[in-house]
Amino acid sequence: MRAVQVIDYHQKLVMTEVPKPQITGPFDVIVRIGGAGVCRTDLHILEGQWEQKSGITLPYTIGHENAGWVDEVGSAVTNVAIGDKVIVHPLITCGFCRACRSGDDVHCTASAFPGIDTHGGYAEYLKTSARSIVRIADSLEPADVAALADAGLTAYHAAAKAARHLRPADRCVIIGAGGLGHIGIQVLRALTASELIVVDRNPAALELAMSLGADRGVIADGSHVDRILELTDGVGAEAVIDFVGEGGSTAEGIRMLRQAGNYYVVGYGENIDVPTIDIISSEINFIGNLVGTYTDLTELMVLAARGQVTLHTTAYTLDDFQQAVDDLGAGRVRGRAILIP
Amino acid sequence: MRAVQVIDYHQKLVMTEVPKPQITGPFDVIVRIGGAGVCRTDLHILEGQWEQKSGITLPYTIGHENAGWVDEVGSAVTNVAIGDKVIVHPLITCGFCRACRSGDDVHCTASAFPGIDTHGGYAEYLKTSARSIVRIADSLEPADVAALADAGLTAYHAAAKAARHLRPADRCVIIGAGGLGHIGIQVLRALTASELIVVDRNPAALELAMSLGADRGVIADGSHVDRILELTDGVGAEAVIDFVGEGGSTAEGIRMLRQAGNYYVVGYGENIDVPTIDIISSEINFIGNLVGTYTDLTELMVLAARGQVTLHTTAYTLDDFQQAVDDLGAGRVRGRAILIP
Amino acid sequence: MRAVQVIDYHQKLVMTEVPKPQITGPFDVIVRIGGAGVCRTDLHILEGQWEQKSGITLPYTIGHENAGWVDEVGSAVTNVAIGDKVIVHPLITCGFCRACRSGDDVHCTASAFPGIDTHGGYAEYLKTSARSIVRIADSLEPADVAALADAGLTAYHAAAKAARHLRPADRCVIIGAGGLGHIGIQVLRALTASELIVVDRNPAALELAMSLGADRGVIADGSHVDRILELTDGVGAEAVIDFVGEGGSTAEGIRMLRQAGNYYVVGYGENIDVPTIDIISSEINFIGNLVGTYTDLTELMVLAARGQVTLHTTAYTLDDFQQAVDDLGAGRVRGRAILIP
Amino acid sequence: MRAVQVIDYHQKLVMTEVPKPQITGPFDVIVRIGGAGVCRTDLHILEGQWEQKSGITLPYTIGHENAGWVDEVGSAVTNVAIGDKVIVHPLITCGFCRACRSGDDVHCTASAFPGIDTHGGYAEYLKTSARSIVRIADSLEPADVAALADAGLTAYHAAAKAARHLRPADRCVIIGAGGLGHIGIQVLRALTASELIVVDRNPAALELAMSLGADRGVIADGSHVDRILELTDGVGAEAVIDFVGEGGSTAEGIRMLRQAGNYYVVGYGENIDVPTIDIISSEINFIGNLVGTYTDLTELMVLAARGQVTLHTTAYTLDDFQQAVDDLGAGRVRGRAILIP
Repeated sequence: MRAVQVIDYHQKLVMTEVPKPQITGPFDVIVRIGGAGVCRTDLHILEGQWEQKSGITLPYTIGHENAGWVDEVGSAVTNVAIGDKVIVHPLITCGFCRACRSGDDVHCTASAFPGIDTHGGYAEYLKTSARSIVRIADSLEPADVAALADAGLTAYHAAAKAARHLRPADRCVIIGAGGLGHIGIQVLRALTASELIVVDRNPAALELAMSLGADRGVIADGSHVDRILELTDGVGAEAVIDFVGEGGSTAEGIRMLRQAGNYYVVGYGENIDVPTIDIISSEINFIGNLVGTYTDLTELMVLAARGQVTLHTTAYTLDDFQQAVDDLGAGRVRGRAILIP
Repeated sequence: MRAVQVIDYHQKLVMTEVPKPQITGPFDVIVRIGGAGVCRTDLHILEGQWEQKSGITLPYTIGHENAGWVDEVGSAVTNVAIGDKVIVHPLITCGFCRACRSGDDVHCTASAFPGIDTHGGYAEYLKTSARSIVRIADSLEPADVAALADAGLTAYHAAAKAARHLRPADRCVIIGAGGLGHIGIQVLRALTASELIVVDRNPAALELAMSLGADRGVIADGSHVDRILELTDGVGAEAVIDFVGEGGSTAEGIRMLRQAGNYYVVGYGENIDVPTIDIISSEINFIGNLVGTYTDLTELMVLAARGQVTLHTTAYTLDDFQQAVDDLGAGRVRGRAILIP
Repeated sequence: MRAVQVIDYHQKLVMTEVPKPQITGPFDVIVRIGGAGVCRTDLHILEGQWEQKSGITLPYTIGHENAGWVDEVGSAVTNVAIGDKVIVHPLITCGFCRACRSGDDVHCTASAFPGIDTHGGYAEYLKTSARSIVRIADSLEPADVAALADAGLTAYHAAAKAARHLRPADRCVIIGAGGLGHIGIQVLRALTASELIVVDRNPAALELAMSLGADRGVIADGSHVDRILELTDGVGAEAVIDFVGEGGSTAEGIRMLRQAGNYYVVGYGENIDVPTIDIISSEINFIGNLVGTYTDLTELMVLAARGQVTLHTTAYTLDDFQQAVDDLGAGRVRGRAILIP
Repeated sequence: MRAVQVIDYHQKLVMTEVPKPQITGPFDVIVRIGGAGVCRTDLHILEGQWEQKSGITLPYTIGHENAGWVDEVGSAVTNVAIGDKVIVHPLITCGFCRACRSGDDVHCTASAFPGIDTHGGYAEYLKTSARSIVRIADSLEPADVAALADAGLTAYHAAAKAARHLRPADRCVIIGAGGLGHIGIQVLRALTASELIVVDRNPAALELAMSLGADRGVIADGSHVDRILELTDGVGAEAVIDFVGEGGSTAEGIRMLRQAGNYYVVGYGENIDVPTIDIISSEINFIGNLVGTYTDLTELMVLAARGQVTLHTTAYTLDDFQQAVDDLGAGRVRGRAILIP
């Protein structure tokens, strides 16, 4: 089959012919790819940023946002059947460790991550596990939802975690209405009745945010912290969800937070650097957020099936992978780029 | 009545004669002091560290850890009666703001703090509010529990918050077995079946910790992070409660924390300074902790009445206040110093 | 002032002239009534059903769903001001008992209930407490929201309690889309992304339910339990909220419930009568629901201000009180009847 | 191997020679039995009470409380190894359904129950799944903990669920200090600082309860409801855990419950039969309890390893199975009867 592979760091990806993956374990599943999201992390991989962490031997097939149809299943698989239309949770998890047993499979102590530390989905077929397969509704197409498998799932996880504590009279500030942020806003709108206040430098992003259910948009022009305080009776918001995490967003975001408020860290880049006396005197919390669990993904697919979460995508054929990567690098992709074999 | 007052910063406290406080509002309560804790914060006040924050006009009476007997009550008070033996919650709260209405009275938007921003309890009588009075069991004496009103209450609050998430198979690291820490250990032992691992530089403090119910003591000698990892299967503890918060404890403490773990910030001094990528990739949380609520204080008094939380105290007469302050400053007090009028 | 009073049980209400209520305590508040809801409980009072429970001495003024403007305040009141537009929480609570201190003021151990055990709001003025006053948005009028003070608040409380556990992939069955049910549906739609399946005998009620955000309506024609099971993959719903509680609804509702599901009891009349072996083998829960807390009422007013909860009302002048009572008794009121002084 | 089988209902069990179970699936595990608990449910099976529910074809091997050593493992098993000392969770679960994925494996939609609907552990070997195996500490022996696999696990599950809501100032009534109850008391003592009040007809059971950490014992002599109210300030307990569920215990237990309290149903036999108006006016909850999850069992084994939960057992050789069954039926077993091959 055709597959797009990393042959070396700081080199371009290469399309090559490789054997189709084979079922070797009882719970293996082969998915025929219907869509594979092109993610900024893929660019970082090529730059060598993941070389140490992943420890993978080159060449290998990248692509960690995958959806398609079940093509083959191992001997013990009963939860999915050949032909099922599916999205693939980004992790392969063991199902036996304490984290897996308690629903927190993202912290599985023996997981693999196709596209990062094993072969991924820029290809015709992907090998994963029965534990990672979520069936999608008839109304959804793999190419439309593939990008929800990782970026969307991360946004869902953080937004749903925040929503568990948000009451109707609360205010939730969302920093960044970009790729993750605009999904987070849709999730928050579906799950809460809190007031959603979105901060972004880009007026077009704020406009999109308002159309997706945000209550207020605040342009990040230097006066935005004051503006947020003004909109929150001078005391700050009960929750801040930071989809940016760099360029000073955390220092600003903390100033927007109310006493006893929760600061959800999603975007990354800079340090959280705050005096412990400020943490205790305001009794605020910083909440880390990784990608969502399998259950999170099933819930996100429910929202997608109802049209409560939508995503703008730009399709490329798998053969045009270089164009997609170039467009993403140059900021020319509207929404998410999707490779279709 | 006699009262010990701050007459200026960077000067010694002065014993003086002032009018006994008067009932002026319907919910006022006058408490005859049975014991007033001498706290390190009192030294900080004299050093001027609270001058800006409190904004109080000098002279005023200090002392924010108070217990005694109800002496007079306002016209609308029904929850306590003259003669009741009581401990005094450190804050006077409004009862009407959203925080007060939801049990989170510590974040009252209109609170006062006797001993910090209004007259406190180094005196014969203290004026507070009916909302701040907790009756204590017959078996307890004001002088024995006074120091639980603030230091103990802070330790209780953090430990009880952590206990809500701790399961029997979890490990909880406690950094610092000093004033707050040794109360926190007793609270954790009463409320959880988790393994309690205590870290301290002082072997005597570790010995005390073990006698109070800790499962393991680790001497902070430079190898302690490695030792904690060894004791936690190489993955770290589900919770770290940091009663120190300075001298590098936070950087070390974070390394002791498991993926998806909670870091409870109680002690303060240095900054939490951690890359956002570490927060998200390990999905850890930082949880701020202020003094406990009124309900926390009632619960702490239940533990005290059962002998599940005990405190070593050294009594001084109110007239010997300078000796108590000097002893505290010189590290000569075993347990907590208590002034008794 | 004019007031409508119960002069004896099994007799008609009487309009009479009584003294305007006076401020006597520091936290008293006098509200000029803008609207008072006429509730089925008022009919039950006249029938003598509450004679024993309330123990009130006749005559007294009924009316427990009240809204209006603050007219006078006691000496210690700071949270509201004369002229404020307000809705009145149905209970007067103490603020000192453990329930009040933890936000659960409905279980105050020293509460009063205007309109039930003390004078209510079928009058020009009502005396209540500062603790019971919720300011409403400029966009809302007292006569429009008065009926949310008790009936609406009960529906909110149950729906919001259920919403805390409902996830997007869950199904919630609502039994009864009448007075309380149609508010509950609006609240659930605002707070959750679960599938809402409404059961009612009345096709018009189902139509209303669908227009308010329900996902499916099931007519209660004898086949409805089977229909619910069909709609829930044969396993039943994660939650059933029973706004009926009589005529066999509980036995039917339990059959609609999934293993480990929650059954919310709101409507009343019959007994819950179920073998303990069924409770344990399916591990289901029965959750009681009383009227909502003060905080619930503030949240409901947020939803009302945003137009997420609306209520159809029929206005009567206070002088036409008998007509309103007769219309309610005869089933001629569309939505809720409101008396306007 | 030798196995004790049901050959027909209303007949005695029969020892017979059957083939040792074989590994057929990738996650199968064969356990060499070290101890199998003899449970009252086994008597009920013989009486035919489970004939309909289990639908099992006779003859089959009974015994659902099993512990021992891993003897053989399927090709995909990595979480346990041959020779491991283990206790066996009573259910074989799928690991893929929503319940399994969220840690609630007891509600697995495709489970099997060895000893009930497939071959159990009154034998030399038992076949189960890798998902059902919990390793036990070196200090524990299979024969000592086997009875914790089902009876103990049920008590743990209910007690731990209650403990999540119990605060130090709360009172918890435990009805029945027998087989399950005396384990529940030990669990509650380990996990909470609430006051534990035990009710039983048997003075010896109360004595045992006190020695295990109960705070008060109340003899069930007809005055016990009044006595409980007396011990709870006339308002009742925040929680009642009913390990009896027959002979009128539920009607009595409800009277012991405070407003907004939780009634945990564990024992069974009679109906919960209570007016809905009482459920809503007191806002009480009824909480069903089935056997515990896999995670519950790991936690219970932590408590057992620390000596916080102990169990009195009477050992019989497997050949003496009839004696054990007879002794249990006649009430002659002290603690739990254990068969040892």
